[in-house]
Formats: sequence, structure tokens, C-alpha cells
Amino acid sequence: MTTRNVLGLDVGGSSIKYQLASVAADGLPVVVQQDTLPTPESDPIAAFAAIARQLAGDDLAGVVIAIPGLVDSDSGTVLRSVNLPHLDGLRLGPLLGDLLEVPVDVVNDGRAAAIAEARWGAGDGHHDVFTLALGTGIAGCHVVGGEVAAGAHGIAGELGHIVVDPHGELCGCGQHGCLETVIGAPALRRAWRAAGGEGSPRDLLGAYENGDVRALPIVERAGNALGDALLTLLALVDPGCIVIGGGLASSPHRLVQLAVTRVDEKATFHVVPPIVSAELGRWAGAVGCIGIAVDRLTRAVHASAAR
Amino acid sequence: MTTRNVLGLDVGGSSIKYQLASVAADGLPVVVQQDTLPTPESDPIAAFAAIARQLAGDDLAGVVIAIPGLVDSDSGTVLRSVNLPHLDGLRLGPLLGDLLEVPVDVVNDGRAAAIAEARWGAGDGHHDVFTLALGTGIAGCHVVGGEVAAGAHGIAGELGHIVVDPHGELCGCGQHGCLETVIGAPALRRAWRAAGGEGSPRDLLGAYENGDVRALPIVERAGNALGDALLTLLALVDPGCIVIGGGLASSPHRLVQLAVTRVDEKATFHVVPPIVSAELGRWAGAVGCIGIAVDRLTRAVHASAAR
Repeated sequence: MTTRNVLGLDVGGSSIKYQLASVAADGLPVVVQQDTLPTPESDPIAAFAAIARQLAGDDLAGVVIAIPGLVDSDSGTVLRSVNLPHLDGLRLGPLLGDLLEVPVDVVNDGRAAAIAEARWGAGDGHHDVFTLALGTGIAGCHVVGGEVAAGAHGIAGELGHIVVDPHGELCGCGQHGCLETVIGAPALRRAWRAAGGEGSPRDLLGAYENGDVRALPIVERAGNALGDALLTLLALVDPGCIVIGGGLASSPHRLVQLAVTRVDEKATFHVVPPIVSAELGRWAGAVGCIGIAVDRLTRAVHASAAR
Repeated sequence: MTTRNVLGLDVGGSSIKYQLASVAADGLPVVVQQDTLPTPESDPIAAFAAIARQLAGDDLAGVVIAIPGLVDSDSGTVLRSVNLPHLDGLRLGPLLGDLLEVPVDVVNDGRAAAIAEARWGAGDGHHDVFTLALGTGIAGCHVVGGEVAAGAHGIAGELGHIVVDPHGELCGCGQHGCLETVIGAPALRRAWRAAGGEGSPRDLLGAYENGDVRALPIVERAGNALGDALLTLLALVDPGCIVIGGGLASSPHRLVQLAVTRVDEKATFHVVPPIVSAELGRWAGAVGCIGIAVDRLTRAVHASAAR
């Protein structure tokens, strides 16, 4: 096996973050290019093919595309993407693969980012990593040995939808009092407005830092709810490391600090693992795509050697 | 590899349930003997060795011992067993292994039973099985591909210690309102006595069947709490099958039926897997020991072939 290129595309609603990596015989990828591109608005298969050919030339061994939404990775199909509705139902993997004549994998963007954080980011060195992204939703993903432990039906890790308050608000998922109804960005925004505050959840967190008494109960309730949910995670899943990222986890980290304090105070038989901040930031999705592409390349080499 | 014998000993406080199996070249075990013996009260290493020699003769390829308590399977040590205190701290695996000159594995009895139910019992045919034993405690165990997914620190699956009522009773583990404080046998006994009932949790369940209004709120609260805990399990772990056994799950099955009804009513995005009763009953622990012994034998053969 000589050096070959793999391409990771982390596709968002308006822009694509991509990494192009050169993979040596030992399977180690070296990122040779990293940038952003506008997301094509029409004819996605042809547009992605043109991007891949332009970036990687003839020496392309595989493409992995991360999509914000529900995907069926087995068939390479985008099931539903709120931010990329023109991809809904598209058999992106096989169609683009046929055109480029290389394997094309399609993954959920959160899972790609989780794989990246677990392998090369904040979870590096741990076999068993649970990543959590705090934002509009709460996305959880359990990565064991560098691979997603997705559960029997592909939905494991939904920490945002465990019930923390049975008498709480109706969640988008149909349950009442899910963690998301307390700590999700829309929930924090509503609570902050109801308390007379102005602006975004970040403004709420800023007001909390400045001692605003209106912010205090909202932020503490959210931090405590996250802590309680993490205790449930420790009891059921017992991860070796918890990585927390997403817009609400950064700047300031107060929500996470409150949650960690809660966990330390209330843990009994639990083993509290390191709870750390995500490190790869906005490039995590693209990095994860490269990881998945390298896995496929390595498996192909092994399968070929075994024949 | 010719046919060889493996021995599984499921050691309880007063009796040992054992199975002796003959393992053919294809790795399939055939149980040739199954019975109970009194648990030796002193000199456990010599006593276990005598039992193994007597049952298996010279043709012994491995022993697996299931212990009710905390064990370190890596070192073969019994850490703490309430029912077998004279084994506490004993390096049972290596000491007995040296004497018998075969590998001796030591496992927790609940995990051995879970492996058995997942492979050959009610979970047969499912890759990903979560087993739950309802009794004095609530023991959960996640078995994936026939092996226990024990978590990073060996404590995953503690469904009995997720908090279902933050304002609930103090649990033995130090938290408040764990599932065990609502549905564990001692909790049910206390609630039943407080309501003026007499007898055991089984009597409580019998009274519920007979329409006793004192039993109604206790049993429904317990069933609902189990259902809520199972919803959390579905969201976080997403198992392919849930197997429920233990003294409180059998005869009558009302607690489990109430929990399943609760899950069906409240599930939204969750995928509700088959929720079934354990099948192997009191022999599950010994059966699991045989499974673990066969695994070791098979690995040894593969390692030998690879050399």
C-alpha cells in the first residue's frame, strides 16, 4: 500500500468543513489540507463529486461525509436532516461512490465528532469515552475502542432524553421533563426571558457570572440536572472518561462546573471518571470522518492480505 | 483437540450447584452431570479441588467458579462475599489453579447467570441483551455478543441504583430514592408492613392479585418505578432484549407486567425491545460458568493454532 488520500467532509447548513489526509502504509493519516467551502444548494451528488475530485485528484481512496441529522450508515442514506432538507432520503453513499469509484461512508456529524474526541481529542488515552455536546439539543455518544457503541437499534447514548423531572415541561420527543427541557438552549432561553432576562443562553450564563439573582436558580437547576443525569450515566454505562463540548459547554464553563460539583457531592458507589472539555472544537466532525475513512482503508488492506 | 471436561461451580451460602460438561472438538459443550453439593465450610481450596477431581477425574480442562459477591476476575480473587465470608480476600483462581493444574476462573454469580440467559436462555438469538434480577437487590448486567459489557471500572449496569425519586428513602448505597428503595424486596416488605399487611413481598403481590386495596399503591408504585428505569435504560443503552428474572419477577409476574405497560405507554423515540422472563432459573449461574470455561478453552485452541 502506497500513500493514498482520504477526504472528510463535515457538511453544515451553510458551509462544509473538510480535511484531506494522506494515509501512509502504517495506516497513520497526515492532514495535508483543511478548509471550509460553501455547502452546495442543489445537485448535491455532482457537487460533492466535483469537490472530491478537485481536492484529492486521482489519488482518492475514500470519502466520509458527516451530516447533521438522522442517517442510515449501513445503506449510506440520509434519512432526515433539518438543516439540509434537500438531502432527505438521498442514497448519498452509494450514488457518490458509484460516481467517484471509491467507498463513500455517511455518518451522523455528532458521532463523527465523538469518534474524533475519543481518539485524538480530550478522550485520548481512554478506551471507553462518553461524549456529550450541549447545545440546542443534548447529543450523547458512547465510543468504546474508537468505535461508536450505538446500541441494538442505533439510538444509545440519548442522555438528553432521560427524564430528570417527571412533572417537567413537554419535550420535543414527547416525554415530559427530559434533560433537554431543563438544559437545552431553547429551554434556557425561555426560562431566562420568563425571569425578565434578555438575550441568549450565553447572556444568561454571563449574567450568572455577574451575580444576577434572576440567573441564579435557572443556571443552578440546569447544572444540577446535568449532574444528576451524569450520575445515572455512571451507574448504567460506567465510562472511563466523559468529554463535554458544544456551544453551551464553552465560555463560560459554569454549567459543566456545577454538574461536576453535583456529581462529586452525590456519588457513592459510582466511579467518577475524568470529566473534561472537548478539545477539537469545530473541526472535530471532519477529524472523525478521516478516522472512519482510515478504518475502512485499514480493514480493506487486512481483508486483502488475508485472501 | 479431543473431548475434554469443564466444570462450573455456582457456589451459594449453603449449597453448590454444579454442571460438568464435555466439550467436543467443535467447542460445543454437552452437560454430562448436574447436581448440588453442600458448600464446604472450611479449607475451601482443598475442598474445591477434591470436588473437581472427584467429578471430572483426570480429564479436566478448566474450572469456573461463580461467587455471590464482589470478585476481581482478572486476578481470580474474591473481594467480598456476604454469604461466604471465609472466602473474602482469597486468591481462589490462582491457588486452586495451581493445585489442579488447569485454569480456574472466578466470576460474580449474577454475571455468570446473565451470560447464560443471554446465550442459551431467554436472550438467545439477540446480540445485545440486558438482564435484570429482581430480589433483595436489583442486579443488572449488559451482555453484548455473549460477553459482559462491564464498563470502564466494572460497575456498569447498576439499574437498581439509578435515582427514581430524588426525595425518596435512603438507599444502602448512600443515595436517596434509588430504584432499589422502591422495588427491592426489603423496601416492599417495609411498605407492606407499614400498610398493615403481613408476610413477605410475595404475600404483598398475592394480596394485590386478590384486590387488596392496601397492596395496590405499593405494587403500582414499584411497577411504575421499574418502568421509568427501563425507559432510562432504553435511552442510554438501547438493548436488543431485556431479560427479567429473580425471585420477585416470578410467580406472579405482576411487577414486570406493570413495568412493561408503563414502558409501552411512555415510550416516544425509544425502541422498545422484547422484555421477557428469564428461562434458566436456578441453574443459570452454573450454565454461565460452563459458557465461560468453553470460551477459555476455545481461545486457548486458537492461540495454539496461531503459533
